[in-house]
Amino acid sequence: MNTSIEESVIQLAKGARKASRVSGGLSTDLKNKVLIDCAEKIESQVESLREENAKDLETGKEKGLSGALLDRLTLSDKTIGSMTSGLREVAALPDPVGEAHHSWKRPNGLEISKVQVPIGVIAIIYESRPNVTIDAAALCFKAGNATILRGGSEAFHSNRALAKIFREACEDNGVDPNVVQTLETTDRAAVGAMLQLDDFIDVVIPRGGKGLIERVVAESRIPVIKHYDGICHVYVDKDADLEMADDISFNSKAQRPGVCNAMETLLVHEGIAKVFLAKNLSRLKEAGVEIRGCEETVALFSNNGLVAKPATEEDWREEYLDLILSVKIVPDMDAAIDHIEEYGSHHTDAIVTENWQTARKFQREVNSASVMVNASTRFSDGQQYGLGAEIGISTDKLHARGPMGLNDLVTTKYLVSGEGQVRA
Amino acid sequence: MNTSIEESVIQLAKGARKASRVSGGLSTDLKNKVLIDCAEKIESQVESLREENAKDLETGKEKGLSGALLDRLTLSDKTIGSMTSGLREVAALPDPVGEAHHSWKRPNGLEISKVQVPIGVIAIIYESRPNVTIDAAALCFKAGNATILRGGSEAFHSNRALAKIFREACEDNGVDPNVVQTLETTDRAAVGAMLQLDDFIDVVIPRGGKGLIERVVAESRIPVIKHYDGICHVYVDKDADLEMADDISFNSKAQRPGVCNAMETLLVHEGIAKVFLAKNLSRLKEAGVEIRGCEETVALFSNNGLVAKPATEEDWREEYLDLILSVKIVPDMDAAIDHIEEYGSHHTDAIVTENWQTARKFQREVNSASVMVNASTRFSDGQQYGLGAEIGISTDKLHARGPMGLNDLVTTKYLVSGEGQVRA
Repeated sequence: MNTSIEESVIQLAKGARKASRVSGGLSTDLKNKVLIDCAEKIESQVESLREENAKDLETGKEKGLSGALLDRLTLSDKTIGSMTSGLREVAALPDPVGEAHHSWKRPNGLEISKVQVPIGVIAIIYESRPNVTIDAAALCFKAGNATILRGGSEAFHSNRALAKIFREACEDNGVDPNVVQTLETTDRAAVGAMLQLDDFIDVVIPRGGKGLIERVVAESRIPVIKHYDGICHVYVDKDADLEMADDISFNSKAQRPGVCNAMETLLVHEGIAKVFLAKNLSRLKEAGVEIRGCEETVALFSNNGLVAKPATEEDWREEYLDLILSVKIVPDMDAAIDHIEEYGSHHTDAIVTENWQTARKFQREVNSASVMVNASTRFSDGQQYGLGAEIGISTDKLHARGPMGLNDLVTTKYLVSGEGQVRA
Repeated sequence: MNTSIEESVIQLAKGARKASRVSGGLSTDLKNKVLIDCAEKIESQVESLREENAKDLETGKEKGLSGALLDRLTLSDKTIGSMTSGLREVAALPDPVGEAHHSWKRPNGLEISKVQVPIGVIAIIYESRPNVTIDAAALCFKAGNATILRGGSEAFHSNRALAKIFREACEDNGVDPNVVQTLETTDRAAVGAMLQLDDFIDVVIPRGGKGLIERVVAESRIPVIKHYDGICHVYVDKDADLEMADDISFNSKAQRPGVCNAMETLLVHEGIAKVFLAKNLSRLKEAGVEIRGCEETVALFSNNGLVAKPATEEDWREEYLDLILSVKIVPDMDAAIDHIEEYGSHHTDAIVTENWQTARKFQREVNSASVMVNASTRFSDGQQYGLGAEIGISTDKLHARGPMGLNDLVTTKYLVSGEGQVRA
């Protein structure tokens, strides 16, 4: 370990801890003002932001990043607009700090309340898209936390410039700018050093590829809230309304294939498979979707060219994030649930059925963060659920599961008030 | 790594995962019947339990365990009574599974509810006291989880015999007995192997000394809910009712010094230190408490022999769990809070004051799981808070903080119900 890197990360984390002691007590009005000022500053500094972004794009091109990656890296008008409207939206959300879950009185007169308080210091490790810098910082700040941001090296200049604007908005309002800090190095050793600092950092949220998250989990002494992949299924039951199933399957796969709540595997009851798939696979194929089928699917549709190739064992475990779909015909719902439990990532799974008992059993037995009946998997999202802006979609079971918003960026403490009570 | 140990731990964890898929759906009545049957079986098998316990006590004596440790290891009438009444108490608690936090309807007609579901598989690693086997298994089972228990090697036979009774109660009721399993080896490598199995185990709860917990945190790929030590403080403010402060200080320290919510450090405002401490330290000393004072305390009370020795830097960080108390005189409440934030373990801290502003500031700024005004730290406990039996007192900030009961042994899932909605 390079001691100077280690030392600078420790100093930064100590600064975050110190800032968090004050940020937890800031008034809602002041926090909102910082967020709105930050939006205005971004709007008035678009040109210098673009200059910093251009440095990253330049390096990206030299390194041969794909068009899609360069696209994600670009601070376009649309990206900037989404950041500034995001800041204003977070300012408009209710402040989760101080809200009491529950207050009660004990027989001995003690009054107890369980109130929401900030977590403290949150580290976010993310890849590529620089707008995450603002989105994540805004949510964590509104919930009273200090944040340490570590974006991808390919967005280094953009991330630093965005964090600098957030820090200016803090300083203008007399708030310790160390509520938002970025790791000022692209050296990967800095992340390793940071993940040891459980005295100063309360939680790490990695957002990115599976490799990144696994590395964080393996190295970290700090609790991690994981945002793993979405291997989402739609199961079309024998009692499905087939027209509804056709729309839900198509929407779940094709409306936006590159996101974690898109369908990756379609499961179909054998009783309706031939009729349903003939229509649905044609529609998907027309939209450019490549179909990889189980043996039975291949046997049914090899003649008319709907199935591109047989699905392998790996296909059932793959998050394509692309116009590719694996299809499996199952003898009954139990087999569908077994498949989902075996191969799924417990992110979002849906059934299409008109049968009440079947729907209830599916919702009860499928062990995923979101379990849907007769709705597209694409609804699995904080905005769509009405929770407001989200920090991501947690695939963990502890603390936050599914779309993770402001209310998941706080913890609780018990306040106990008495008049001299002691234990007998 | 011994592959046969590793393989047997994997088989055991797979068995737990399989059992958990069914245990989550068991009816409340059936779960309660298992718990009550288990209590009856313990009562009817006391003699054979005592025989197994005798083996552990024998080995413990050979190994030279202290009287206190042998005492904790003994299945006395009282311990057995507390286990069986604990089982009946957990049976009487409301079932947390299936309870909906919140249900709402979206503008597009989607109905969303966030319901409580079991976490899945919970591993508990604990030391010494065999009654934890039953207490922990009962709570985890009532919340619909499967449990893997790893007790201390010194209680090996007792733990195995208790788990066997729980498993018999399951079998008698047609429940997969693998909802409760013990690691059938005292080899520490088994724990190391278990901590890698994040595919099969959802959370690890270590209960024991700091060394054990740190080892688990360092090795585990599975999320850990930590039960660290309680370095609890009472701060006696200048505006305190000194008689009340005397009772609270005495009760917090001396009523049961060996537990995590006992006071370890007394902080006193300099304005009332001389008067207050003269009385309070005498009372504590009479009860056999050894006083270790800051410089000022030593200077005030060195003549009359109330202070045994000066407190060192290590004293402020020590959880004595014994009749020892460190005492520090502070210039004001800010200094008291700084001390608590620097040296405390954020478990439970109390202020004694009659001043409204001071009390509110203390509750706001002290960043601990329980923050008390005018009450003994000894109230920080699930039973005392009215939460029912507790699995322990979490010093973590994520998922569960403070006394951790049935409602912390579940997670949530979103159920989304529609009539064919798709995203535009």
